[in-house]
Formats: sequence, structure tokens, C-alpha cells
Amino acid sequence: MAEKIKVTGGGVTAAKGFKAAGVEAGIKYSNRKDLAMIYSEYPAAVAGMFTSNVVKAAPVLYDMQIVKNSPFVRAAIVNSGIANAATGEPGMQVCRQTAEAVSKALDIPADSVLIGSTGVIGEQIPMDRINAGITKLADALSDTRQAAADAEAAIMTTDTVPKEISVTFKIGDADVTIGAMSKGSGMIHPNMCTMLAYICTDCDISKEMLDKAAHMDIPETFNMITVDGDTSTNDTYLIMANGCAKNPRIESEGKDFDTFMEALHFVDAYLARHMAKDGEGATRLFEVKVNNADTHDNAKLLARSVAGSSLCKAAIFGCDSNFGRFLCALGYSGAQFDPQKVSIDYVSRKGSVRVFERGLKKQYSEEAATDILSEDEVTVVIDMDEGDGSATAWGCDLSYDYVKINADYRS
Amino acid sequence: MAEKIKVTGGGVTAAKGFKAAGVEAGIKYSNRKDLAMIYSEYPAAVAGMFTSNVVKAAPVLYDMQIVKNSPFVRAAIVNSGIANAATGEPGMQVCRQTAEAVSKALDIPADSVLIGSTGVIGEQIPMDRINAGITKLADALSDTRQAAADAEAAIMTTDTVPKEISVTFKIGDADVTIGAMSKGSGMIHPNMCTMLAYICTDCDISKEMLDKAAHMDIPETFNMITVDGDTSTNDTYLIMANGCAKNPRIESEGKDFDTFMEALHFVDAYLARHMAKDGEGATRLFEVKVNNADTHDNAKLLARSVAGSSLCKAAIFGCDSNFGRFLCALGYSGAQFDPQKVSIDYVSRKGSVRVFERGLKKQYSEEAATDILSEDEVTVVIDMDEGDGSATAWGCDLSYDYVKINADYRS
Repeated sequence: MAEKIKVTGGGVTAAKGFKAAGVEAGIKYSNRKDLAMIYSEYPAAVAGMFTSNVVKAAPVLYDMQIVKNSPFVRAAIVNSGIANAATGEPGMQVCRQTAEAVSKALDIPADSVLIGSTGVIGEQIPMDRINAGITKLADALSDTRQAAADAEAAIMTTDTVPKEISVTFKIGDADVTIGAMSKGSGMIHPNMCTMLAYICTDCDISKEMLDKAAHMDIPETFNMITVDGDTSTNDTYLIMANGCAKNPRIESEGKDFDTFMEALHFVDAYLARHMAKDGEGATRLFEVKVNNADTHDNAKLLARSVAGSSLCKAAIFGCDSNFGRFLCALGYSGAQFDPQKVSIDYVSRKGSVRVFERGLKKQYSEEAATDILSEDEVTVVIDMDEGDGSATAWGCDLSYDYVKINADYRS
Repeated sequence: MAEKIKVTGGGVTAAKGFKAAGVEAGIKYSNRKDLAMIYSEYPAAVAGMFTSNVVKAAPVLYDMQIVKNSPFVRAAIVNSGIANAATGEPGMQVCRQTAEAVSKALDIPADSVLIGSTGVIGEQIPMDRINAGITKLADALSDTRQAAADAEAAIMTTDTVPKEISVTFKIGDADVTIGAMSKGSGMIHPNMCTMLAYICTDCDISKEMLDKAAHMDIPETFNMITVDGDTSTNDTYLIMANGCAKNPRIESEGKDFDTFMEALHFVDAYLARHMAKDGEGATRLFEVKVNNADTHDNAKLLARSVAGSSLCKAAIFGCDSNFGRFLCALGYSGAQFDPQKVSIDYVSRKGSVRVFERGLKKQYSEEAATDILSEDEVTVVIDMDEGDGSATAWGCDLSYDYVKINADYRS
């Protein structure tokens, strides 16, 4: 990270002019927060990316229209418990009614309200509970650390820890802040994951440049994580920029845009890594770095194939130096390469060891390899010796608990 | 199955003129058979299909040349324990030396010997143990039921049961037999799996028509099974036809070819289903039928996507009617469709239940659904209402044992 980007220990309310809240609405879960709101005191430019799944949840279809057509946004409301996916016209109706209710409660235009959902597919959301929840949320909105934590807790499903980050950096003389929260855990796979990510910044930036920044960075961050290969119906990434930092407005590429991109990349990569590490049942972060592939795109294909392989993930769970599985996953990635040029190293806090060199097993200590692989963050570094394409993918190990969580998620 | 195809309860030695053996060679495992041989008393036409993985094991590269260039084959030798993959030039040397040793022991041309391996990737095969094993195999070769069982046991890795089948049918007045064995279990995914399949028939059929039959049937059978999404380095399907049945020789398409195709399809589909059902850690067969897709190719894409989804597989393990996951997996399959037209039924010996109809959840008894899903063979039937393309894929559930087996497979 460049010196100029400072992590400030805040969450989704860190940027000026943003408030949040999280309350118990009883949508599906009991005795836990399950409805979150983000509110911008000023109109915010918005950009978004959404699931590539053909089956798109109602709130995804709804938000796609808002991002495309609304001149600005003021609020986002998100429930956990029910995904509002595969719910047909009644599901779309819930989105419209929710936006109307938020509009009335906060006195903002209905078309400035974003809707998000995560949870079980196929169930309808009880509108009466949403309405009661909105009243509570409107009362609870605040820019405090606690309000951010409440919102972050309310969007979790099988996540074990909330994901948040805030950074500040300079644009001109102005201090600009990005505060963000996300949830992940299961149905996590590139393009995109069961993830909801809300990025709030006080940067003054045009909608066009905000959109450009998001679309440049997501393919290198959120689309490089995988938990289980299942691309969800609800994936949503939204970034809102309200201009409260009063920096020289970013309306084109250049030094200021680059600075913003650098900070945004730091935020996105941090959230992506932490979503992978907190994958369902995960005991460790499984990072895959592919170096010297023939192209950047092939480096991405190769890295994601290894990070997504059930057999590689199970080997990482077992701290087992089964390098043949990494090689096998490279081989079915779709990228062409010469297996005789491939070398593989394991790297963690404990050190590093080369286990495979230019197509052949290297003599190495199994004990040392197991020791390196037993750390909670493990990197497999693969050298293709084909060109200068490199990429990193983030996954997690495959554990008994993944199966346990998913064999009976609904109950 | 057509009346005219009879299952005869034999294995890989059922067809006339074929012998087999399986012995303990101590390649990697102790106290178990790990080296198998098939021998044809007469020259046999051969056809094969091999892994699509860029990283092809040495025996795969070797067999591809034999199938392409040799006028006929006489024997196949297969070891379990070490895959001879990622072994470079020394690995190819092992193949050549093995073929030479079999050639001498059986007095057949070296280029009529097929080589197969399955097991750990990256290790070299100890040639001295192969040589000692070949001597034992040559002595043990027999056309008995027991010899077939020995060979079938010798090619297993984490398989829990051997896979074999034999059928007879008429071509003209001649009784023609197909006997076959295969192994599967892990690294199982379409195009193709960690599978070895050896199909021996006494049918008199030209090499060209044998090749055509195999290439027509495999995409509908072996390439429609998935256990874990990992396409192995060693997948091999070989079919040998020695003409001992003395049927009117098949040299072109027509009635006789169709009869042969029907019998072959029965054999291939049987082995494919049983490999899926015996997937690593599997507790049940998970069959996915997609009906009325816009095209046959899209029906295949859709069926394989659902059968291969970790989340769907975990739901099947938990007997959990989580139909949203099936819908989600359809959505990221790559096929385009209208989610509002989709209907989903569960079917097993216990009966059937419709859980999702034209884009919306149907009212149904959770208890009845769980009961149906708790059978050892479960079918999810999906109606796309888009056209007349249909396809079936076979997978298995994702259990704790899959993780256990693969977290430390090597030890």
C-alpha cells in the first residue's frame, strides 16, 4: 500500500455525510439484526455491478434500473434472511413498496433508494416487517462507529465476522475518505459472488468516472475470489460518492483519478480477501499467485481454477502438499501452456518451499511443507515461464464445516 | 433397455477371447492388488478418448499414439497408486519400458500394448516392481469370473465397489458380448473424469466404426458425470474389439451399427451412473434431468451445472429441499433462459413432488420432499419450457467424507 493511503479503523459511516443503522426486523431470523440502512445527507453519484447469473433476484433487477436511470441516490436498505430471488412479480412489488416506504420515512425521492437482499431463494419477504423495520431504522440512523457496526452485523448470513474498512487519502488539499462494508461467505465465485458490498465515499467524482473506477477494479478484486463455485442470484456491488470531501471534482482520467483508483483498489482487495478468508467453513485463506503466464487473462484463468478446485481446497484443509492437484487444476483451466515449464512454491509466514520445478517434483522436506501450509494464510505461487502475465486469486479451504453449513442451511 | 440386450452378470472377461488378471505389485499400496492386465487372444481394433486436461499423464500421451498409429492391440496394463503424471521424460520412459516388458512376457508386439495409471500425481513409478508384477500377471491371465474380479479390484483407488458389467445381443445370427470395467471416484468431471474405463467386445467391427461409436456415446454418458469438478490428468476410455463373435463385420452405419451402439450406450451409461454413485464420500446418486430446454447442448450445460454445484450437492446430502440452489445453478450454467418458465420436481422410489412451478415456489409438504430426497437415488427433474432439448447428468452428494478423503489422500 502506498504511504499516502491511511487505514483509519472505521466502517461504512467513515466518509463525511454518511449515516447508517442496523435493526432487528424479524424477516427470517430471530434475536439478531437483519435490516440495514445507509443514508447520505447529500445526493450521491452511484455506480454498481451485479450478478452475471441469468436468475437475478428482484432487488438486483430493481437496483440495475436505479443505477442506470437515477441522477443520484440517497439511501440503501438491505435485509438478510430472504434473498427475494425467484419470487416473480410479487418480489418486484416488494422492492417498489420498500422504496416508497423509505422515501416517506426519510423524505427523499423513491428513485434515490437502493434495495438489497441476501438469504434463502424462493421465499417472499413479509412487507409488514420491512415497514416496521424502516421506522426503527429511520430513528436509529447515525454516523457513529456503533451505527456502522450495527449495519454491518445486519447484512451477515453465515459470515462469522463483519467485513469493513475505511481509508483516507489526499486529492488536492482535501482529505477524502472511503468507508465500506460487505458480506460474503457461501455461493461465492467470480462474476460475482453471493456478496453484497457497499462502498461509501465523500469523494467528489462524476458518475461516469465512478462507474469507470468500479468496472476497472472489480475484475481484479471481487471477481478473483471463490468459495464454492456457485455464482449467486443476488450479488451486488454499489459505490456511492456524495462529494462532501470538497476535493477538486474528478471528471476525467489523470493523477487524481489514479489516486482514487489506488485507494478504491486497496478497499476492494481488502474486502475480497476477507470474504474469501471467511468463506463458509473456511479455516484458512488460500491465496493463489500465478506469475509469468503468457497473458494477464490467462493468469487470471489459471489462478481462479486452482483457487476454485475442490481437491486443491481439500488438500489445503489437510495441510497436504499435494502439488499434483494444483498442476491438474491449471491443466483444466482453459488456458494453454507447457507443463514442462511450470514451477510451484508454497509461501506463508513460516517461510517458503519449492515443491515442483520445470515439470518435475523437487526433493523437499514434507515436514517443512506441512508446516508452511498449516498457517492461517497460505499462498501457492505458480511460475508458468511463458510471458509476463500475473494475477492473484483468493479462496479458502474446503472443510467439514462447509458441508455441515450447507447440508441444512435453511433450518 | 431394449429386450434384445441381456445383462449376463460377467465382467471384463465376458467377451470371447479376452483374459484378465490382477496382482499385488506393491507400486504404492501394500496388501492389495494394484496391477491389472487385459489380454486379447486375437488382434483387436481399438478406439479411445482421453482427458482434455492440458497436463496429460505419460500413459495418456503414450496411449494416444498407440490408438492413433497401431493397426491393432493385444493387451492393456494398468496400475493404481501412482498416476505417472507430471513425471516428464522419465515418466514416458516408464511407459516404453513397460510395453517392452509386456511384449516379451506375452510374445506380442510392443506397439500392441496399452498403458494406464491412476493415483498420486508427480511421483515416479518404480520400474522394478512393474517388471516383477508383469511376470505374475502373465502367469495369472485367465478368462474366469475371478480373473475379471481381480483386474477390477486392482484398478480401484478410493472406489468402494468395483464397477463392471457385461451384456450380450445379436448381430445377424451371432451372439455378441461386451464386457467392461471402470474406476472412478475423485477428480470426476465431464471431459473427462479421473476415470479409467476398459470396454472389451468380441464384436467384429472396423476401427473406424469403433471410433465413431465411442465418440458418439461418451459425450452422453461419461462426460455427463461429475463428482467434484476436477478434470483429471489421467482419464482414459479404451474400447477393444477382437471379432471373436464372428458376426457380419460392421464397417458402416446401418442396423447392425445401431444395435451395437445401443448395447454400448447401455454399458457406458451403466458404468457412468455407478461411478457417480460411488463418488468419493457419496451417500447417494444425484441425477439431474433437464427437459424442454431450447437445445440439446443447453440441456446438457444446465444439467451438468446443477449436478456439479457444491451447494446443490450439499443440499442433497442434507435431504434439504433447497430448490433455490438448483435454480441458481441453472442461472450460472452459461445457458440463456427465462426463469419465469422453470418448474422443478423431485423424484425417487418414494414418489415425486413439484416444488417450483413457472418461476414461483409451489405449496408442498416439506416432510414429503425430505422423504423423497432421503432415498439413495434421487432425481431432480427440471422443465425449462423453452423447446425440446433434454439431457441427464449424474453426480453425487457432497459429504463430510469427501472432505475427509481428500484432505489427506496421499497418506
